[in-house]
Amino acid sequence: MRMVDIIEKKRDGKELTTEEIQFCIKGYTDGSIPDYQMSALTMAIVFQGMSEAERATLTMAMVESGDQIDLSAIHGIKVDKHSTGGVGDTTTLVLGPLVASVGVPVAKMSGRGLGHTGGTIDKLESVEGFHVELENEEFVRLVNQNKLAVIGQSGNLTPADKKLYALRDVTGTVESIPLIASSIMSKKIAAGADAIVLDVKTGAGAFMKTLEDSRELAKAMVRIGNNVGRRTMAVISDMSQPLGFAIGNALEVKEAIDTLKGEGPEDLTELCLTLGSHMVLLAEKATNVEEARQMLKNAIKDGSALETLKVFLRSQGGDDSVVDDPARLPQASFKIEVEAKEEGYLAEIIADEMGTAAMLLGAGRATKESEIDLAVGLLLKKKIGDQVQVGESIVTIYSNFEDVQEVKEKIYNSITITKEKVSAPILVHEEITE
Amino acid sequence: MRMVDIIEKKRDGKELTTEEIQFCIKGYTDGSIPDYQMSALTMAIVFQGMSEAERATLTMAMVESGDQIDLSAIHGIKVDKHSTGGVGDTTTLVLGPLVASVGVPVAKMSGRGLGHTGGTIDKLESVEGFHVELENEEFVRLVNQNKLAVIGQSGNLTPADKKLYALRDVTGTVESIPLIASSIMSKKIAAGADAIVLDVKTGAGAFMKTLEDSRELAKAMVRIGNNVGRRTMAVISDMSQPLGFAIGNALEVKEAIDTLKGEGPEDLTELCLTLGSHMVLLAEKATNVEEARQMLKNAIKDGSALETLKVFLRSQGGDDSVVDDPARLPQASFKIEVEAKEEGYLAEIIADEMGTAAMLLGAGRATKESEIDLAVGLLLKKKIGDQVQVGESIVTIYSNFEDVQEVKEKIYNSITITKEKVSAPILVHEEITE
Repeated sequence: MRMVDIIEKKRDGKELTTEEIQFCIKGYTDGSIPDYQMSALTMAIVFQGMSEAERATLTMAMVESGDQIDLSAIHGIKVDKHSTGGVGDTTTLVLGPLVASVGVPVAKMSGRGLGHTGGTIDKLESVEGFHVELENEEFVRLVNQNKLAVIGQSGNLTPADKKLYALRDVTGTVESIPLIASSIMSKKIAAGADAIVLDVKTGAGAFMKTLEDSRELAKAMVRIGNNVGRRTMAVISDMSQPLGFAIGNALEVKEAIDTLKGEGPEDLTELCLTLGSHMVLLAEKATNVEEARQMLKNAIKDGSALETLKVFLRSQGGDDSVVDDPARLPQASFKIEVEAKEEGYLAEIIADEMGTAAMLLGAGRATKESEIDLAVGLLLKKKIGDQVQVGESIVTIYSNFEDVQEVKEKIYNSITITKEKVSAPILVHEEITE
Repeated sequence: MRMVDIIEKKRDGKELTTEEIQFCIKGYTDGSIPDYQMSALTMAIVFQGMSEAERATLTMAMVESGDQIDLSAIHGIKVDKHSTGGVGDTTTLVLGPLVASVGVPVAKMSGRGLGHTGGTIDKLESVEGFHVELENEEFVRLVNQNKLAVIGQSGNLTPADKKLYALRDVTGTVESIPLIASSIMSKKIAAGADAIVLDVKTGAGAFMKTLEDSRELAKAMVRIGNNVGRRTMAVISDMSQPLGFAIGNALEVKEAIDTLKGEGPEDLTELCLTLGSHMVLLAEKATNVEEARQMLKNAIKDGSALETLKVFLRSQGGDDSVVDDPARLPQASFKIEVEAKEEGYLAEIIADEMGTAAMLLGAGRATKESEIDLAVGLLLKKKIGDQVQVGESIVTIYSNFEDVQEVKEKIYNSITITKEKVSAPILVHEEITE
């Protein structure tokens, strides 16, 4: 088999065989296929696409390129959730305890990563003493006992995907639905998920800006999952503005606690109930989505979701008293209000710009070496559709330095106030199950 | 400027600027742009094409990537001829002396190369003593004096094209009209041509199999030439069967001598008159193509074309007595006839297969290190449309080994004889001047 023949076949719009795709991924991982052939192939894929069969084969070839996490010692159906990424997305912190409290095992492997705020692990480290350095046996024991544990990323998962993604990033081949979908799904599957709920963000603050593109990506991932034997569904949710109010690490932990108490932002609560009920359904802990949603609502109401959070934090060395007293979380030195300069209705909050503003405060990492300031970030006081008066606060800045002029300007630039009434955006656009 | 932005721009179908194309070619030549980005760009070009302006810029950027031959010391308009390659193509050997004999300066830089038979230099070395190792001053002096000289390739011409072609060859990006056209034109321009006549072959034995593709390539090259200030025209000629009768080095030299005597194969003679008259026209030695053709016919008739060949060979150390006595050229030990097994009309002679048969005899190089046997090759006795009887010779094999079973089989496999009358293929399909 010669790589050049495979490139030409794809260039000419023909379907690659299982053997050909496996040859590409194996050869690329072991270095026998050079970058310059792989980049030509990925550019051909950008133009010619991939069939459903090709996508499934590519995904599994990337899964098999490295280690795979074995979660078989954990009882029950392991359901993972993945978000395509947004700003101020606190869903993971809420969903873990919420679905665990109704018996869904949540065995979360998580990273730190780059971005506007830290990764799930960074956020959880706002809780004093909390750590994710667990032995595998301890991790399994904790999930079986408490239904929830988080462990730091280890092992050499999907090296083909890592290498391929780095190549796509510099060769103009990122924007390809089959390649994006296979990349995401390979990571979830290698991490041991039996079933997957996908939160595909759409709108100005998301990777996919239009509903049409988001729908195509969602369908692609759902079909890959179902074609390789992992029950998968996707929710397309709004990212035309940040989700919830908090953007920042400790601020999001507090927001998650509020939400588990039933006192969280309306949009965050609603999205968590939607995603969570599908997780419960895929884990076969309910027979239909309405029943699942009711179970989760009850878990919030009767305090069992909050109790699960406490047990989870305590089991991994964390100070669980923060749950009842969030003032024990890291606190910023300065609280500065960003006040409306005109009256009207909030029409736009550009999510990535708000994320960048939070990063300027130190809430996220620009490079791998950056230190995160867990205390800082932004708290939205208004969201799209809200009425504002002159001088009223739109955003509160939590900072550890006093001069926040640059941050303020970024926030003003990312906000639009109009005279005309504006309606709040639709939160959940679609649910994709096949 | 970032290469990834340029790749994405082309991928999205936008036109690249002069600066962007120059940045790509300069960076690729000096190694600052890696292969994997260049191959992604070339694959994007395969799908999105290039505008006329982009093609001209790319061509000149490749010309400027290395040395350029300065032929300004040669008097008159230097017209070069280029063929896209076929089998048994003796036109260069005929055209040099033919157009030189009417005053067109022919300053030919030539190579050896790989292929079914040798390059022009290999063929000329069939003449004892002939050599192409000339100092530049001597080369210029000879062209000014005799109107014809051939020198071996020297200097670092179009390194960008060499590097790019090697990359395209292994990344499935050879088949792109803009890239093929720019590659050919950059080499001709760097070699110092003021004007260019292109012989674009079409048919089973050519790189371009269909008339439509050949026309597209011809137009692309003519437009590049005219856009960068080199008067250029193209002839689309038949390669559904080998041109002339001879395939082999000394055999083609003898055929060229015959043609310059007015005793050559009809198709070769006709194509040389067509190409030659356009060369004469572009060199401004005639005012119209009919006048130019008449001049060439006269040069054959009055012996001046043949005399030019003698002077040319003698001036570069060659034994010019071969012109009057071609038996002095290298002779093969064995002459074996390939006889028709059935009667009818010759309907097909697959040109590349015949070329491969000649290479099996040793007429061409499979690798750079191969030694060429100048004496061997094939002589067609019949061409498409000819009537054949059982036992009549179709091809004569000239070999230096006796067992030519494999060669014979290849020839039989490449020939089709039908009961129905077949007409000879059209030789010159089109002339493209803009």
